[in-house]
Amino acid sequence: MDTTQIDYARNGVLTPEMQQVAETVYIDEDTILSDVANGSLVIMTRNKSQPVAISKGATTKINVNLGTSSANIDPGSEIEKVTVAEKHGADTITDLSMGGDISGIRKSVFENTSLPVTTVPIYQSTVEYGMKNVTEDDILSTLKNHIYEGVSSVVLHCVDSYTLEKLKGSKRVMGMVAKGGSFTSVFMLTNECENPFIQHFDEILEMLRKNDVVLSLGNTMRSGCIHDLSDGAQKVEIETNVNLANRANKKGVQVIVEGVGGHVQANDISDSIRFYKSMSKYPLFVAGPLPTDVGLGYDHIAGSVGASMASGAGADYLCYITPSEHLALPTPEQVREGVVAFKIAAHIGDSIKYGISDRDLMLSMKRRKFDWNGQIEMAIDPDKPSEMCPIKGPCTMCGDYCAIKIMQNYLSGDN
Amino acid sequence: MDTTQIDYARNGVLTPEMQQVAETVYIDEDTILSDVANGSLVIMTRNKSQPVAISKGATTKINVNLGTSSANIDPGSEIEKVTVAEKHGADTITDLSMGGDISGIRKSVFENTSLPVTTVPIYQSTVEYGMKNVTEDDILSTLKNHIYEGVSSVVLHCVDSYTLEKLKGSKRVMGMVAKGGSFTSVFMLTNECENPFIQHFDEILEMLRKNDVVLSLGNTMRSGCIHDLSDGAQKVEIETNVNLANRANKKGVQVIVEGVGGHVQANDISDSIRFYKSMSKYPLFVAGPLPTDVGLGYDHIAGSVGASMASGAGADYLCYITPSEHLALPTPEQVREGVVAFKIAAHIGDSIKYGISDRDLMLSMKRRKFDWNGQIEMAIDPDKPSEMCPIKGPCTMCGDYCAIKIMQNYLSGDN
Repeated sequence: MDTTQIDYARNGVLTPEMQQVAETVYIDEDTILSDVANGSLVIMTRNKSQPVAISKGATTKINVNLGTSSANIDPGSEIEKVTVAEKHGADTITDLSMGGDISGIRKSVFENTSLPVTTVPIYQSTVEYGMKNVTEDDILSTLKNHIYEGVSSVVLHCVDSYTLEKLKGSKRVMGMVAKGGSFTSVFMLTNECENPFIQHFDEILEMLRKNDVVLSLGNTMRSGCIHDLSDGAQKVEIETNVNLANRANKKGVQVIVEGVGGHVQANDISDSIRFYKSMSKYPLFVAGPLPTDVGLGYDHIAGSVGASMASGAGADYLCYITPSEHLALPTPEQVREGVVAFKIAAHIGDSIKYGISDRDLMLSMKRRKFDWNGQIEMAIDPDKPSEMCPIKGPCTMCGDYCAIKIMQNYLSGDN
Repeated sequence: MDTTQIDYARNGVLTPEMQQVAETVYIDEDTILSDVANGSLVIMTRNKSQPVAISKGATTKINVNLGTSSANIDPGSEIEKVTVAEKHGADTITDLSMGGDISGIRKSVFENTSLPVTTVPIYQSTVEYGMKNVTEDDILSTLKNHIYEGVSSVVLHCVDSYTLEKLKGSKRVMGMVAKGGSFTSVFMLTNECENPFIQHFDEILEMLRKNDVVLSLGNTMRSGCIHDLSDGAQKVEIETNVNLANRANKKGVQVIVEGVGGHVQANDISDSIRFYKSMSKYPLFVAGPLPTDVGLGYDHIAGSVGASMASGAGADYLCYITPSEHLALPTPEQVREGVVAFKIAAHIGDSIKYGISDRDLMLSMKRRKFDWNGQIEMAIDPDKPSEMCPIKGPCTMCGDYCAIKIMQNYLSGDN
């Protein structure tokens, strides 16, 4: 039975989702069909949400992480973040809640956004069953619940015991910094077993397939500081994940690979992404990356630099970073700062991938005419300028001595 | 008589300034001597300020623009900005005041910072004598006053009438956006004459030489939107400026060339800088650049992306951009946001030029040990984290479920 976008594409059926996607991408319908079929174009949906195209040929997409932690449980604030994220242009939401009524918060996230929603199910099983006591059945049943409740995508950290063994002897400064990866690893170390997601991979694919839930293969080995990239663990993980992605694709399950995330020296960003792209057709999801460790309090800015470079080099999907990264759960206002910084990065990356956008030209045409409201409407965050400067124009930077106005007058002879 | 760093270097004398610079650069004393002599290393000083090295082999430097405008005259606020800029790591200050008692404000800037100070003297002559009535004598005498009062550097916009004539027929969206360039152009158009700075170039060099004031050749043709780079006007200007720079260097005057500034498509940033570097040995000063026009309200972030790319490709000296660019004169807090965003960009650029810094490693070593105060001390802006999160650690993002802590325990067997 056909259930997934891949199934339909392989039978040559252009689904309503593909038709909607066709209006937003730089590729034609035939290419959409073949790219969905071979796994290089992922379409993420949820109920009646606008399908989100993640691929070469589509604009770079932004994911927003939110959710309670054990140290900060305020579901109302998390729902406010959902609204803020959607308003400011997030493409997808990931609910990472680990505090309070996790299932209830997830339900509330579903109800408060039309965007696709991703989860990392091992977060919930770890909290609810305990890090040391959680069983394989607990892990799989939680995953099943998330799928049947209607998530758009789940993140599974498929670190294998070979890679984990290698990490023990590594000279990494920061070790492992991926939370879902650490929970999965603790389970493996406690029970002296292989990764349960790898062990039950075919069974999991069957569950995902039935609901066309996108599989996101987590980046357990992402580097926690810019000195940690060179141990090769990320490359080993990419190879493992690409093999698993091939198995998923064969079964008709849409799949995204997470990689080159975390803290990555600026010099390595483009090369690492091109390495991934040379060996994999699956969309690449990148967390950040941060090209420096010293931006504490401004990691959304450092992240915007890394994400612009990553997106320009071919990353398809970016996980935002907020100003409070490494310090605290973000406030709704910090979520907004992070979303906008990454919308700017995606836009710059897209200008590298696809050329300059008309939106830039439209803003500048309005700017040259001193149409303040018009240029503000074209901005990525149109609310910010009026919040900063209640009086719209003329700009107080130059006051009477505006070069643009002066030269327009003089060059037209109208002085 | 030897008066400039170049003179001394040509005679093989390692000045106290060169000795101080030697402690901060990646080149040895012999290279400092030859680079200063040939003009590829500029040393900017003022009175007893720490000399600032601007060159290949030195860290990327940041300039902060501030000063009153005709629409916003609050000298106290401008002096507060001087203090904020110096505190947060600006390397040089440019006083662009155009409102109120301009000479008095400049004096006050001198008194309130130990950093080198740059001015654009035609701003003051334009305000005080009137855009249409200012004479060549007024322009030159104002320039002379600035030099004798002790500025470290002056910006002169040496656009020639050939380039100006070409601009009349150009298809640029934004025309000319450089204020000093527009004032100079208006003088030329009003008086139907050649650029007064070019006409009197030898005389000006003599004035600069006597006080070892650095000549900064302004970027009149910088593009005001990312669609405007391709008309080639910037390249013509760079050629003109490099010829003038050769004349300055011959006379022993230190010189910086401004170029590739303004709004520049991300794809063009590295190439444009490499083009400049292929034809010129003089340090390159870049305003921004902004790789998108739609970041209104967040131009410090878009600018940080462009500046990281520019610095990584070889730009030596960056002019910061604040969040209020295109909207208003910045507040002191916005000056801080701009300085820090550009410090991050310079740091990332330097990691591309010179490799990863020890500072990144030191922060991460403290982070892995959960030394909150220690990591905050290593941050580019150590005040920000505590302003954002009054309680220092543990980070509320993960609370009890910190991947770093968990894996340190499990991998060490200490669980």
